[in-house]
Amino acid sequence: MKEEKRKDWKSKVHEVIYGTHTPAGRLFDLLLLALIVYSVIIVMLESVPRIDEEYHNFLNISEWVVTALFTIEYILRIITINKPKKYIFSFFGVVDLLSTIPKYLSLFLVGSQFITAFRILRLLRIFRILKLVRFVGESNNLIRALNSSKTKIFVFVFFVVIISVILGTVMYIVEGPQNGYESIPHSIYWTIVTLTTVGYGDISPQTPLGQFIATMIMIIGYGIIAVPTGIVSAEYASGMAKGESLDKGRACPECGSEVLQQDAHYCRQCGHKLSED
Amino acid sequence: MKEEKRKDWKSKVHEVIYGTHTPAGRLFDLLLLALIVYSVIIVMLESVPRIDEEYHNFLNISEWVVTALFTIEYILRIITINKPKKYIFSFFGVVDLLSTIPKYLSLFLVGSQFITAFRILRLLRIFRILKLVRFVGESNNLIRALNSSKTKIFVFVFFVVIISVILGTVMYIVEGPQNGYESIPHSIYWTIVTLTTVGYGDISPQTPLGQFIATMIMIIGYGIIAVPTGIVSAEYASGMAKGESLDKGRACPECGSEVLQQDAHYCRQCGHKLSED
Amino acid sequence: MKEEKRKDWKSKVHEVIYGTHTPAGRLFDLLLLALIVYSVIIVMLESVPRIDEEYHNFLNISEWVVTALFTIEYILRIITINKPKKYIFSFFGVVDLLSTIPKYLSLFLVGSQFITAFRILRLLRIFRILKLVRFVGESNNLIRALNSSKTKIFVFVFFVVIISVILGTVMYIVEGPQNGYESIPHSIYWTIVTLTTVGYGDISPQTPLGQFIATMIMIIGYGIIAVPTGIVSAEYASGMAKGESLDKGRACPECGSEVLQQDAHYCRQCGHKLSED
Amino acid sequence: MKEEKRKDWKSKVHEVIYGTHTPAGRLFDLLLLALIVYSVIIVMLESVPRIDEEYHNFLNISEWVVTALFTIEYILRIITINKPKKYIFSFFGVVDLLSTIPKYLSLFLVGSQFITAFRILRLLRIFRILKLVRFVGESNNLIRALNSSKTKIFVFVFFVVIISVILGTVMYIVEGPQNGYESIPHSIYWTIVTLTTVGYGDISPQTPLGQFIATMIMIIGYGIIAVPTGIVSAEYASGMAKGESLDKGRACPECGSEVLQQDAHYCRQCGHKLSED
Repeated sequence: MKEEKRKDWKSKVHEVIYGTHTPAGRLFDLLLLALIVYSVIIVMLESVPRIDEEYHNFLNISEWVVTALFTIEYILRIITINKPKKYIFSFFGVVDLLSTIPKYLSLFLVGSQFITAFRILRLLRIFRILKLVRFVGESNNLIRALNSSKTKIFVFVFFVVIISVILGTVMYIVEGPQNGYESIPHSIYWTIVTLTTVGYGDISPQTPLGQFIATMIMIIGYGIIAVPTGIVSAEYASGMAKGESLDKGRACPECGSEVLQQDAHYCRQCGHKLSED
Repeated sequence: MKEEKRKDWKSKVHEVIYGTHTPAGRLFDLLLLALIVYSVIIVMLESVPRIDEEYHNFLNISEWVVTALFTIEYILRIITINKPKKYIFSFFGVVDLLSTIPKYLSLFLVGSQFITAFRILRLLRIFRILKLVRFVGESNNLIRALNSSKTKIFVFVFFVVIISVILGTVMYIVEGPQNGYESIPHSIYWTIVTLTTVGYGDISPQTPLGQFIATMIMIIGYGIIAVPTGIVSAEYASGMAKGESLDKGRACPECGSEVLQQDAHYCRQCGHKLSED
Repeated sequence: MKEEKRKDWKSKVHEVIYGTHTPAGRLFDLLLLALIVYSVIIVMLESVPRIDEEYHNFLNISEWVVTALFTIEYILRIITINKPKKYIFSFFGVVDLLSTIPKYLSLFLVGSQFITAFRILRLLRIFRILKLVRFVGESNNLIRALNSSKTKIFVFVFFVVIISVILGTVMYIVEGPQNGYESIPHSIYWTIVTLTTVGYGDISPQTPLGQFIATMIMIIGYGIIAVPTGIVSAEYASGMAKGESLDKGRACPECGSEVLQQDAHYCRQCGHKLSED
Repeated sequence: MKEEKRKDWKSKVHEVIYGTHTPAGRLFDLLLLALIVYSVIIVMLESVPRIDEEYHNFLNISEWVVTALFTIEYILRIITINKPKKYIFSFFGVVDLLSTIPKYLSLFLVGSQFITAFRILRLLRIFRILKLVRFVGESNNLIRALNSSKTKIFVFVFFVVIISVILGTVMYIVEGPQNGYESIPHSIYWTIVTLTTVGYGDISPQTPLGQFIATMIMIIGYGIIAVPTGIVSAEYASGMAKGESLDKGRACPECGSEVLQQDAHYCRQCGHKLSED
């Protein structure tokens, strides 16, 4: 009986923390989102010297309160789930842990608290939390497009790196340290700044020959920028054409991973049989 | 009888101000366009110190004359329309009001007259005024494409913001205030400047590690820039394929909103029966 | 008889100057191309102070020789064509005239000789001269794509200008002259530098609020850059799909305009009956 | 008999060096890749003054060892192949030679050792070595897309150059040497920096008229950047549609060129009959 009760207690908390169907679950999720945004803003403001000087105590205490709440949440998530290991080593499990640890570390290591800004990754839950079926669809489509063009993008980046090494070396030989191209790696950095059309201007060619080569690099970059655009566009368009049915915002009660397909009967991560809802 | 006359007077003015069919209506619209362009140029020139010093009186009087004319036009628009509230709270109603108020405010608040530059938004009437059916079609197509890719673009911006916060924090930790990355928000600003390939160069990485990460960010930005291009292209192309029949430049006499479909019999905003013309 | 002879002489010269079929015609065209490239390089080198000092006489004489040759060619073109007016007011007619006049003007107006660099426009003849049927096809395709997306691009530029005026004004109010935003036109210049992702960095936002707005502008620019890409891509793709048969490098003997369609029997400009060849 | 033995020895070495099927062949290739990456990093580090000072001897000896190994490999490649001339004048043959010579040259010519960074081109073997059929497919697709849009890109670059010369001249006349536009070639360099949206900011327009023209150039650049994107996208998409069967990582035993089509029975370079494997 007692065992049953405990199970009951656990399943209720599970419903609130992982579920998005009950009013309590939604409220919890919205509060969590607000807390995440709040805590990220706190971390950012802490890094602004002028603000940190004036409000140091307030920011510090806020940080500790948020960290405490996140720690409690993390422990509850582990306790109430059936397969804790799956959760702990999942993407969100790692993010949740990394959202709390740096603050504790900051007691020993000054500066490490800024790593807590990474807890903004927790915001990715927003898609599941707000039951944004359409949004999940959109982002899945994006991720799928990027996923299926993975090898193409690898090949592309590989070529860009080779081209950059060669052009960077040429520019190093042509311009040399006296014109700001201090070393080959530094020259390669400049080449990529130019190829990607970012163009900081912290270094720029000074000799006529260097400027001529730079001109060539820019026109090459013009052609090159067309390649990933073409790849992603094509993949995205073909992904749109397929159009799959998507998420209803459910989470597997066994491992906590999201259920993506509407017609899924088993969790794609752990194989747990999903109840109809 | 008198009531009828007044109505008659109102409907005539309505025809001139809102209509684009009668010669008087077209003339009014063209004069209005010229006045808008003239007044925006005046505001701009006022902000150039050298010009303002020399021609201050001329510019100031010009401004007041234009503002007076716009005020009269605004009052006439309200009087002659059947449902003034609809107009007042419509996009153009708010723009028309904002085109006159700042100048009056400038009597009390120095500097607020520059806000009148926003009256350039009134130029958007150009599409209706010049009966540019084709142009309206084009801009509708653009707006439709942007509209239907709204959620996609939201998801995209959401990801960009999250990536920027993380990369900005990393760069703040790596480079730090001594290299110009004064705070995390400042670092995030730099990250977006880099990701979007703008690259001012007001801040740029100084350490080799920072330059290496910057290189990664640029290549990521390369891939990321492909995403909105792909989205808008696909939407635009699919919008082109649909091809709808469009505007004849009519305005609803009831609420003043534009009639977009050629075969519309009722105003899509207020349901008023439209006369054939 | 004499009249006939003169006509004969004229038609022979016409064949050499306008035609690309006879060996003499081809040789003339290739020499002309070489001369154009040579003269443009001369003009460029003249503007480099160090080179101009050393080789001033050589460059100056070269220029005068080229100008004399171009003048003779221009006169011959007028004499040998049937409808000289058509030629004189055609695109190439105006370019040919502008290629000679500035040098004569430079006798009175110092500096005007640099305008002769515009004679590079004469290089556009290259497509007809080299009988580059495929190339003409490509460039026609490009021109057609740009042509049919004219109104779309007008609408786009119109929106960009309106957005730039508004955002420029906002930045002027936020940052002000003390941060380098000297006037509203200057601010608009900065906005377009940012929107187009050029980002010189000669001016950049200094206040946190300004940097935040700049960030927004960049992300908007990201979306905006997708629009012309989408438009031109779509037009270009649809142009490719149509695929028309093209130029054999003929020129109308009457007005000198190029014959674009292979199966043309009459000049599309002046209606002159074309001989089969 | 002896002749046969020698042939045997040669064919075995050939299998190790050129083949990717035997374990020895794969091991050799992986070691080679590691050596290439290692040697490129060494060359880069040598160019960093701080690192070179401290580790000069180590870097120099490393370089000599790598160069010796590459020389041995190059000689073996020539000896073991049937048609050495084909290999020597092939792309990889030239690259392999250029990977060793500069180091020997550095004994006489200080600085020439940096050219050895070009040996990164050897990394292109990675596609064949790792039997990355899919990757070869991807890169072939890329190359094919770029190949079939060659003339289009030529026409495009031709137009960009003409536009740049004209706009560069205009900016030289408007801004002049006193504002940093030192000569017409320098001005053209700036124009291309602007057109490609790189925007270093080492030179930027100072006069209002110059800034206005720069604004025009940027908006033109916006439209122009759409052109190569459209071209490459279209070609890439149509290339994807065709979808050919590709490489199994074989090399012709006769001339060493790669066998690209899976169903090839004869080497496409030298006509040598290929054995089934």
